[in-house]
This record gives sequence, structure tokens and C-alpha cells, in this order.
Amino acid sequence: MMRTVKLTIEYDGTHYQGWQVQPKGSTIQGVIEEKLSLLTGEKVDLIGAGRTDAGAHASGQVAHFKTQSPLKVLIIQKALNSLLPPDIVIRKVEEVEENFHARKSPTSKIYEYRILNEPIRSPFQREYAWHLPYPLNWGEMKRATKKLIGQQDFSSFRSAGSSAKTSVRKVVRAEWKRSRDGLIRFEIEGNGFLKQMVRAIVGTLVEVGKGKISAAQFQKIIESKDRKKAGPTAPARGLFLKEVKY
Amino acid sequence: MMRTVKLTIEYDGTHYQGWQVQPKGSTIQGVIEEKLSLLTGEKVDLIGAGRTDAGAHASGQVAHFKTQSPLKVLIIQKALNSLLPPDIVIRKVEEVEENFHARKSPTSKIYEYRILNEPIRSPFQREYAWHLPYPLNWGEMKRATKKLIGQQDFSSFRSAGSSAKTSVRKVVRAEWKRSRDGLIRFEIEGNGFLKQMVRAIVGTLVEVGKGKISAAQFQKIIESKDRKKAGPTAPARGLFLKEVKY
Repeated sequence: MMRTVKLTIEYDGTHYQGWQVQPKGSTIQGVIEEKLSLLTGEKVDLIGAGRTDAGAHASGQVAHFKTQSPLKVLIIQKALNSLLPPDIVIRKVEEVEENFHARKSPTSKIYEYRILNEPIRSPFQREYAWHLPYPLNWGEMKRATKKLIGQQDFSSFRSAGSSAKTSVRKVVRAEWKRSRDGLIRFEIEGNGFLKQMVRAIVGTLVEVGKGKISAAQFQKIIESKDRKKAGPTAPARGLFLKEVKY
Repeated sequence: MMRTVKLTIEYDGTHYQGWQVQPKGSTIQGVIEEKLSLLTGEKVDLIGAGRTDAGAHASGQVAHFKTQSPLKVLIIQKALNSLLPPDIVIRKVEEVEENFHARKSPTSKIYEYRILNEPIRSPFQREYAWHLPYPLNWGEMKRATKKLIGQQDFSSFRSAGSSAKTSVRKVVRAEWKRSRDGLIRFEIEGNGFLKQMVRAIVGTLVEVGKGKISAAQFQKIIESKDRKKAGPTAPARGLFLKEVKY
């Protein structure tokens, strides 16, 4: 009998060419597919909720695969975790309905972007945050951040090479949080995100923080639907796919 | 004029053979000495407060060196941090009195040991905590921990190869703290520590947590002054030299 199995995955993406299988280099999808094939004796196609970029991370990536293997979910989890390298871990394995689809079914996704806004860099955050040693105008950044909320055409934050049919997405929440470990976390929740959209948003919000763009201009950048008007793409290492809701 | 310069150093020790220069492999001391020599044009001897083990880390290592260079401390810091690899950073540079000695002058040192006591391992803590997936008796561990306080002969936790003249050390504080990130932190402060003493203490306290040793037996192990009676040495990756007080 064909079963549909859902995985919740945490990974440190530092040493991978992103989620999706590439002609060259190791990928998260590739490594997990290989171990699943070993485990089930089948050729497994693993479909992920989000195609995280090279160097980006996940605390709650979701993926699914189809299998005829009778292995219990707890056995799949234990066996996978013993086969996978230390920078990838399966946090949960569930058997789900046949029509569950990791990429098509999500109602929303949550991404987190971490910034270390301190004069001196941190050895422990070097692969997990964007280090910005200069002062940023957080008040203006927060005002600009509010302009992201709602259903809008996000072409201004869409990278070349995106294959999505439409650039319209709905952002339901976007906020900045300062934590005790000195990191500043940007959290954004929406029904979907274009290629490198979160990194382009963060790169542009940092331009706001530097005083190069005002919150009003940030709104105009969204309305322009022109990627060239927005700021640079923030580095992948600060980005975490935090949660996928179904 | 000869100056004495004090450095406060943070490092991720994952990719190093410890603090002290070794015949083989890269060390923290070796890398910083090399950059200091480039900067001052002199052969620099850097003396560290604690010789952290291969794979162990520091958030507040202290070291000193002598130099005739007229470079200002802020310039030394900026130049060093631009020359050093991303896993080592100089947090502070100060000019100190001629008789300051990083290893001989400390009044106390604080070490932290991190344990991840959760069923599933973490990709992000893989080099920064000891993963123990089974339940531990924290009450008994805390009772045993209290036996460490005071001036005692710590031969039971002294590794072979230690060159210290005496095994008597004074521990002024030892405690366990649970933090919101799921990590459990053991913090210990004393006037000095023998080779691998903190790791041997943690390894033995974990045996207490597993129910193999009682708090009363832990006391007897200290009194026995016999390393063979104590537990295994906990892995280096969980250990952080947190602070050195002068």
C-alpha cells in the first residue's frame, strides 16, 4: 500500500548548496533522499515546502514522500537520524493523508532572519546571522516593515530566475524582536514567498535603517514592482525557515 | 618602551587543536601570535590564562604579550580582528601594568559546560553541547554539585599529563542553570582548575544523573583522590572558558 509520509526537518545549511538537488554539490534534499532510499529500498522523491538557498538554514522545514515501505514512523525517524550527518536532523515523522503535498498545501510559512547589530563580530554567529557593526534606525525600519502587511504584488523583492506564475503574495505578520543573546530577529509570515523575497526585504529594510530610504519610500518601492529600486539581497546565512503551517 | 598588552578573546574552538601551540595542527595561540607578529614586526609570545582543550571554546579567554610597538590599543584590536579568521575575535585590548601575567595573576576563572538533554540532537548545537538523550536525575546532580564547593584536593578529577605542583584548588561556586533555548548550563568558578578537571567533574556528575553514583558517593570519590573512581571525561565541545577575573 502506498503511504504518504511527512517529515519536519531542522538543518544547518552552512555546508550545503541549498535544499534542492543540484547538478553540483551536496544538498539537503539529496542527502535525505539518499538515506530514505537506503532505508526503504525504493527510489524516493522528497518534496520540500520551501527551497532554501545555499547557506540558509531551517528549524522547521517540512517535506513529504510516497513509499510502499511498511516501516513504522518512529523507526523511520530513528533510522534516518542515525544515518544523517550531524547538521541535519528529522524532528518529526508523521503518516498523512494521500493528498497532502508539502509544497502545495501550506496555508502559511514563517521565516526568521537574524542580524547581529554589535560593533564586534561573533565567532559563534558567523554562519547564523548578518553582522552589521553600524547603528541602525530601528524606529524607521519598524515603520517600513508595516508596509509589508497585506496582499500585494511583491515583484520588487523577486529575484531573477523565479518561476512563480504570479508575484502576488499575502504577508500576515512581519516584526522585529530583540533577544537577550544580542541578536535581532526579523520574523515574517505569509501564504508564500517568491525566490529570495525575504532576503531582498531584509536587505532593503537595512537600507532604511541606514537612512538611505525612508519608510514612505519603502512603500513606493513595493508599488514600483521594480527589483532594481529595492536594496541588495541580504546574505543567506541569516535566514531560517522556521515553520510551515498546513 | 616595552608595553604589556592584555587581550580578551572569544573563539569557536571546533577547528583547532586547543589553545596552546602544538607540533601539529592549528591552535588559537599560534594563529593570534602569527597575526600579532605581522602587526608589530616582532616575534610575539602570547600567554593565555587557560589552556583550553582541542574542540573547547572561549567567550572570555584572556592573554597577554609584551611589545615595543607604539600601536594604539584600538588599532591593535581593529587590525587583529581584520586579520584573524571568523572563528576567533578579540573582544577587548587593554594596556596593563608591566607585572600583569594572564596565567599567574587570575583571582578566579569561570567555566561553563553545556548539555543538551533532549530526545533529539540539534544541528545547531552539534559542536557546542554534549547531547544526552536520556532522562537525568537533576535533583541528585545538584546535591552532588554542592560537594565541590570549598578548598579541596581535586586529584580525582585530574587528568594524566597535568604538570601542576599541587592538586588543591578552591571552588567558590558551582551551579546548574536551565535556559530557554533547551540547554542546561553548568557554571563553575574557582581559583584555578587542573587539566581536564571541569570535563571530569561534568562526566562524573552525569553518572550521578544516570543513577550510577549517589551524591554521597560523589563526595567519597573526591575524598579518594583517585581519578579511576570518578566518571569519564565529558566531551570538549560542551566546554567554554567564560571569564577570567584579576
